[in-house]
Parts: sequence; C-alpha cells; structure tokens
Amino acid sequence: MSDPVKYLLDEQHLPRFWYNINADLPEPMFPPLNPVTRQPLSADELEVIFPRGVIEQEMSTEREIEIPGPVRDVLRQWRPSPLYRARRLEQALDTPAKIFYKYEGVSPTGSHKANSAVAQAFYNKIEGVKRLTTETGAGQWGSSLSLAGSMFGLEVLVYMVKVSFNQKPYRRAFMEAFGARCIASPSDTTECGRKILADTPDNTGSLGMAISEAVELAAQNDDTKYALGSVLNHVLLHQTVIGLEAQKQLEMADAEPDMVIGCTGGGSNFAGIAFPFIGDHLRGGRKVQCIAVEPSACPSLTKGKFAYDYGDTAQISPICKMHTLGASFVPPGFHAGGLRYHGMAPLVSHLTELGHIDPRSYNQLECFAAGLQFAKAESILPAPESNHAVRAAIHEAEKCRESGESKTILFNLSGHGNFDMQAYTDYIGGKLKDLDYAESEVAMALAGLPSVD
Amino acid sequence: MSDPVKYLLDEQHLPRFWYNINADLPEPMFPPLNPVTRQPLSADELEVIFPRGVIEQEMSTEREIEIPGPVRDVLRQWRPSPLYRARRLEQALDTPAKIFYKYEGVSPTGSHKANSAVAQAFYNKIEGVKRLTTETGAGQWGSSLSLAGSMFGLEVLVYMVKVSFNQKPYRRAFMEAFGARCIASPSDTTECGRKILADTPDNTGSLGMAISEAVELAAQNDDTKYALGSVLNHVLLHQTVIGLEAQKQLEMADAEPDMVIGCTGGGSNFAGIAFPFIGDHLRGGRKVQCIAVEPSACPSLTKGKFAYDYGDTAQISPICKMHTLGASFVPPGFHAGGLRYHGMAPLVSHLTELGHIDPRSYNQLECFAAGLQFAKAESILPAPESNHAVRAAIHEAEKCRESGESKTILFNLSGHGNFDMQAYTDYIGGKLKDLDYAESEVAMALAGLPSVD
Repeated sequence: MSDPVKYLLDEQHLPRFWYNINADLPEPMFPPLNPVTRQPLSADELEVIFPRGVIEQEMSTEREIEIPGPVRDVLRQWRPSPLYRARRLEQALDTPAKIFYKYEGVSPTGSHKANSAVAQAFYNKIEGVKRLTTETGAGQWGSSLSLAGSMFGLEVLVYMVKVSFNQKPYRRAFMEAFGARCIASPSDTTECGRKILADTPDNTGSLGMAISEAVELAAQNDDTKYALGSVLNHVLLHQTVIGLEAQKQLEMADAEPDMVIGCTGGGSNFAGIAFPFIGDHLRGGRKVQCIAVEPSACPSLTKGKFAYDYGDTAQISPICKMHTLGASFVPPGFHAGGLRYHGMAPLVSHLTELGHIDPRSYNQLECFAAGLQFAKAESILPAPESNHAVRAAIHEAEKCRESGESKTILFNLSGHGNFDMQAYTDYIGGKLKDLDYAESEVAMALAGLPSVD
Repeated sequence: MSDPVKYLLDEQHLPRFWYNINADLPEPMFPPLNPVTRQPLSADELEVIFPRGVIEQEMSTEREIEIPGPVRDVLRQWRPSPLYRARRLEQALDTPAKIFYKYEGVSPTGSHKANSAVAQAFYNKIEGVKRLTTETGAGQWGSSLSLAGSMFGLEVLVYMVKVSFNQKPYRRAFMEAFGARCIASPSDTTECGRKILADTPDNTGSLGMAISEAVELAAQNDDTKYALGSVLNHVLLHQTVIGLEAQKQLEMADAEPDMVIGCTGGGSNFAGIAFPFIGDHLRGGRKVQCIAVEPSACPSLTKGKFAYDYGDTAQISPICKMHTLGASFVPPGFHAGGLRYHGMAPLVSHLTELGHIDPRSYNQLECFAAGLQFAKAESILPAPESNHAVRAAIHEAEKCRESGESKTILFNLSGHGNFDMQAYTDYIGGKLKDLDYAESEVAMALAGLPSVD
C-alpha cells in the first residue's frame, strides 16, 4: 500500500477544550440586541430560552472552554472523526495539490450538527430542563438534537417546516426513532402558529415561523428551553473540535494547509474547521487562507449587507450584526436546505469584515457535478451543502494544475448525502437548474432592517 | 472518561490475507453441481460468468489468500472498521455481560457488502472484463457493486427487482450517482426477461428473475461477467476481514468472546465475523458459540432442509447443497430484504450440520424493538437485517442478567438503517405485524428440489 489515505485519532485524543475565538479577536464583536428595546441583551434576558451554561459560553471571552466529561463520553462514539487525504481525487484531477478532507459524515446523524446538539443537551440536562424545542428545515439539526436528547434523557420537540415535513417523511421517522416528537410548522400547538394558520390555513411554513413556534414554547414553560443549530457563538464554539482534531491529524500527515475551505449556511461547520487556524494566526502564527463557500442563490457573505438584523421572520430573536440579505428574504428553492439562511453567524461576519475570511459563491449545478466527481474518486457521496466546499476545493486544485503549485488544501466534508437522494435524483435526471436570487427581493428585505443607533 | 468505547485500527492493520475456512473443514464440502448434468461443476463451466481469479477462490482450500494491494487500497478508505464496546446498552440492560459490536455501517454504502464488491470488481478488471452484471433486491449489494465498479473503471449493470425499483428510487439514484445503470427486472433487455413479460406483462419481479437476467447477459457477452453478493464461498471469504479485524480489536480490549452473533440471509456477514473464530476452534483453539440469526418468516437454517437445491428460480445457477426452503418459496413481505433468500450459503449450512453454528430465529417486531433500544443507547440506527443480530445479543445479555454471568458477546452490526426509514416509519406507526411463512408453501417448494444421486 502507498502512503496513508486516512489519519485516525483514538478517543483519548478527543479534544478536552473547545477553542473560543472570541478571546483572540483584534476588535470586539458588536453585541446582540434585544429586539424590542434595541439595547444589548443581558444574560438574564437570554435565560428565558437558554440554560445558563450555554449563555455563559455565548458571552465568554475565555480562550479554552473545557468539554464536560459526559459530552466527551457521547462524542467519542464517532469522534475524533477521520481526516482523509484525497489521493484518488488528486489523481483524477491530475493536480500537484495535496487535498485533505475532514469527514463529519461519520456521526450517527450524518453531519457535524451532532457536535453541538450533544453539548447543548448536556447543559440543559444539568440545569434540570425537561424538554428542548427546536426548529428544523432539511432535518439535519432536528435529527441531531433528537439523538442528543435521547442520550441525556430529555424530551425533544422539533418544529419541522411543513413543506419539508411532508416531503421528507424519513427525516421525521429518524427523529421519532430516537424518541423525539416532530410537528409540522405552522401548527396549532402555539399562539403564533395558530395566528398564522388563521390568516393562511394552507401556509407551508418557513424556518422563521418554526423558530417562532419553538421559541414561544420555550419562553412559556419553565421546564422547556430552546436550542439553535448554527449562527450563535456557542454553536460555533462546539464545532471547533473539527478544526482542533484536523490540526493534530495534519501534523500526523506532516502537512501544513495553505487554505481551509468550508461551506457556509449559518456558518457553524465552516467556523468549526477554520477558527482554530484563524486563531493561530491572530495569536501570531502563520496565515492560512480561509474560504467560506456559499450558494449563489443565497449569498449573504458575498452580496449581503453587514448590518444589525433579525434572526427570524417573526422578529422575536435577538438582533445581531451580521451579513444579511434581510430577514424577510426567501431564497429560491435550491437543493441545499442547510444553506438557505438569510444571515450569517455574527462571528463569521465579523472575521470576514476584518479580512480573515475569503467568501465566495457557486451555483448548484457545478456543486452537484463536483460532488459526483468526488464520490466517484473517494467513494463518499457528499451532502448537497458539502458539495459547495468540494467545488471550491476542486477549483483550487485545478488552479494548482495550471500553475504547477503544490498547495495543501483542507476542506470540511460536513456530511454525507444519504438522506438527500431526491436532490441527486433530480440532478442526475436533469431536472435541476441554476437558480439566482432576485436583487429586488433582497433590496426589499434589506429595506426592512431594524434601525439601530 | 471511562474505559474506551471504541477500538480503532489504522489502515496499516487492514488484514493482508483473507481466511479460507475451506482449509480447516473436518469434512469436505459437497461440490456444487451443474444444473443440467447434475455433475460436479468444473472451473471452465464457471468461467462463462465468473473471472478465473474468483473461481480459484471459490474452489480453493488454501487457508490464507492474499488480499491484492489495489483491493486493500480501496478497502482502507473505511477499513479496519471500528469495534465498539456497547457500554450504554449494557447499562440500559443492567447486565453483567460485556457486549461488543463490529460496525460495518461505516462503508460508503452503509453495509458489509462493499467488502466483497471491491474484491470482485478487481479480479474482473485485471482479467479485462469491461462490464459487470448483478441483481439487487433491497439495493445494498447493487449499491456496493456500483461503488466498486466506479473505483476500478468497470461498467455496472444492476437488475433491480421491479417492485423495489419503484419503491426505492433513492437506492437507484445512489447507484446512478456512482455511474451504474439500473434496470427494473423483469426487463426487455434479456431473452428471459422478455419471456416473463410476454407471459405476465405486469410482473413485479423477484430476486430469482433478476439473477436470471444478469446471468444471461454475462453468459452471452465475452466482455461481461456476473457478480453475486452472498452465498458463494468466495463472497464469504472476502467478508472474513470483519472477523480477523475483530480478533485483533478484542485483543486490544483484553477480551475473549463467549459468543459471536450475526444475522443470516445468504450468510455472508455472519460468515465474515464468525469463520475466523470457528477456524481457530477447528485448528484446536477454544470454542466460541456462533449464533446465526434468521427471520422467523424465512427460516432456512432452523426449518429448512439440508439438500441440493437451485440458487435461483430460473434454475440456471449451480445446484448447491444447503439449507433451503425450496427455490420456488417466496417468503412473506417482512422488512429485511437482505434476509429474504430461500437458501443459505453452503459453507454456513455445512458448518451448521457439523455442529459449529447455532441457528435461531426471531420475528420482526421484537427485532425492530431491539433495534430502537440499541439506537437510543448507542446512537446508531441499525439496518432491519442487523436488528436480528441486535435482538439475539440483547437476548443473551438479558440471560446474563438473570444468571449473573458476565459473558462476552460479540455481534456484527452489518449495516445502518439510514436507507430503511420506510421500515422504521411503518414500525413506529404501528403498521407492521409479525409474519410467518406458510408450512404448506415450504412443503410445496421442497417438493420441487432437484433429484441428485
């Protein structure tokens, strides 16, 4: 056999600390604001929907935050995840580039989302919370929180966007297999759901509505809290195990990356792999180019405005300063549900503004083509979201072929596509086309930004 | 953290040899017969549909057969697969038993099937074969051969039982994603397919018909060979990496199994984990109880007859001595497609007759219940086939709770259930019931056994 294709770490090498990039920011973050008062949010205000352990992490500027034993005890089931050298892909591309990928599809729910779900379930459990509510679109996050709830003995209630609920019965079955309850949103179980249904009985729902339902339930019940799968600081923090492990594994491979690539919807898997590298640079280490790849049809980082905006359409979540297309913007129906968010994680936005992240976008057809090229070489069929990172990695490797440079590329393969076969069916059947957002719709959505002094 | 839950081996520890139990049999196998002449088959006769490399393995009595470098180069992408200690399940069961499971769901197609697909594709490739044909029911094998063909640049043509083709479009999409062609069987692409369609235009197909179509095409084209996913000696041989790795990993865990458990349809995953242990015993080592678990609705090992029978309904494949319910027997529609075969691998049958394998059966509801119990503890949702092994392992662990014995149980988790969510949807929705075969149907099928002197 030739040189290794995968670099494994055993469970003893699971990181003991998450890396908090908030400790190393050259300029402080803009604080999140109360959506009503437009004043910086206090920890007490957040406690209505989040446990104190999570809120502390959301606001912390400690560089290293210890990963609790019970969290590591669950994560070690699939972590450290493997780092692969994509030797077959390199050959297929005839490139002098070295391509590495970190594979998060080994988690039981098939994506990186479980990393934060387990941590959030733990912090809720130890504070006596009985039930977690959340929303899910494509189903990755809902599945992960269902799994995590099952591990810690918490009830989980998932509001699934009605159109997905009907189109993806298997995702619902997966959540129910782990004991969660899954409700099509808008529903008659909440006040805001009933209001929506009264106005529009046939409403097929949106992530914004599902968030409103989940948050309402958490706010109204003492034993119930809410969990979010991306965007917020603590979620990004929980994902840094990806990059921390990758750094150790690249050492095993005797490699130093020139660039780190991840797809970005809310920003959590990208932050997970990139922040440890950006942090090293912020503390005086070498610079690694960090490329955030988003869909052309929902280009918050490349085309959005850096401004305070609502996180949800119902305008009940904190107002955050981030790259946004406007909270009321509804992206066209491209096949990467996890990247269909109007905004971007404030931390990713902030670091992009400071020049530490290079955003770019690709349209969906070239991403699916890249995913299939990857699958035929590396044997793993990526999730449609992850295809965006694959596309960028192949693009960069092709540039190396032109230039003759032997760059080292690391990308995050955030999940597998086994639950996304409808998207591949449509792509292979020639039924997909490239989609673009309407500039007028973004302009209209941006006109609705909250005014903040 | 407490003691380890998983035992990893890096790719350098991928076995270099397959273990061939044919070398250690106390009594020789009954030879396969030509279905027409009823005389022992020659290698030349098999060469019409198989490459010479595969035929040599089918007939070999060498104990160790080297795994070619290019095969190891593909297998190492996901092998060695992890061995897990099911600590959470042990706690949930409150048992003094130690439960280990080998997890084959880490392969890109989600089951052990890829182990043999890669080897078979390689042997065909080096003998100049351009195209492989095969049949698939549930889709696991077709997916695996599609993947393997893609790795070695072979065309793959999969005849998929028409009812599954229509019910499981995602499996088809998965095969097509890897460049394979998938045809609903019976089809108009073969003589036997056309004949069936002429007689019964609405025929929804069967595994037997799909085999006939795949074999016909291979027999009629010089550049085309046929590949089978279970039953035959060489397929079982290729699966022994499972047990060989498990033996090394149990050593790492300082454990010696008292019993080894696998589900049995055609017998390949069970043989893969059990044969290295049975072989050790046959060569004078300690005896490990090997439990083959089959569905009550298709109980070839526990209720079938040990006799020469056809492998397919069209009676064109070799006649083998095996435990069989009769080649014309059609099992009821329970949800474990990979276990719906009328016969059993001749090697597994032979060793059962010799007292080295303990067969048992469970009905489907208790298997699904066991699968969900396992998932909630261990975070992995098993394939419906694998649930049979899970059921037996839990049963044995419960017996230890009663007796106070601390036995060490090893079972093979042959695949994950991510592609089987319809089955879980039906189970959770209360739509499944236990099924039993009709004794009169088996009696009728057994009456059709070929007469062999």
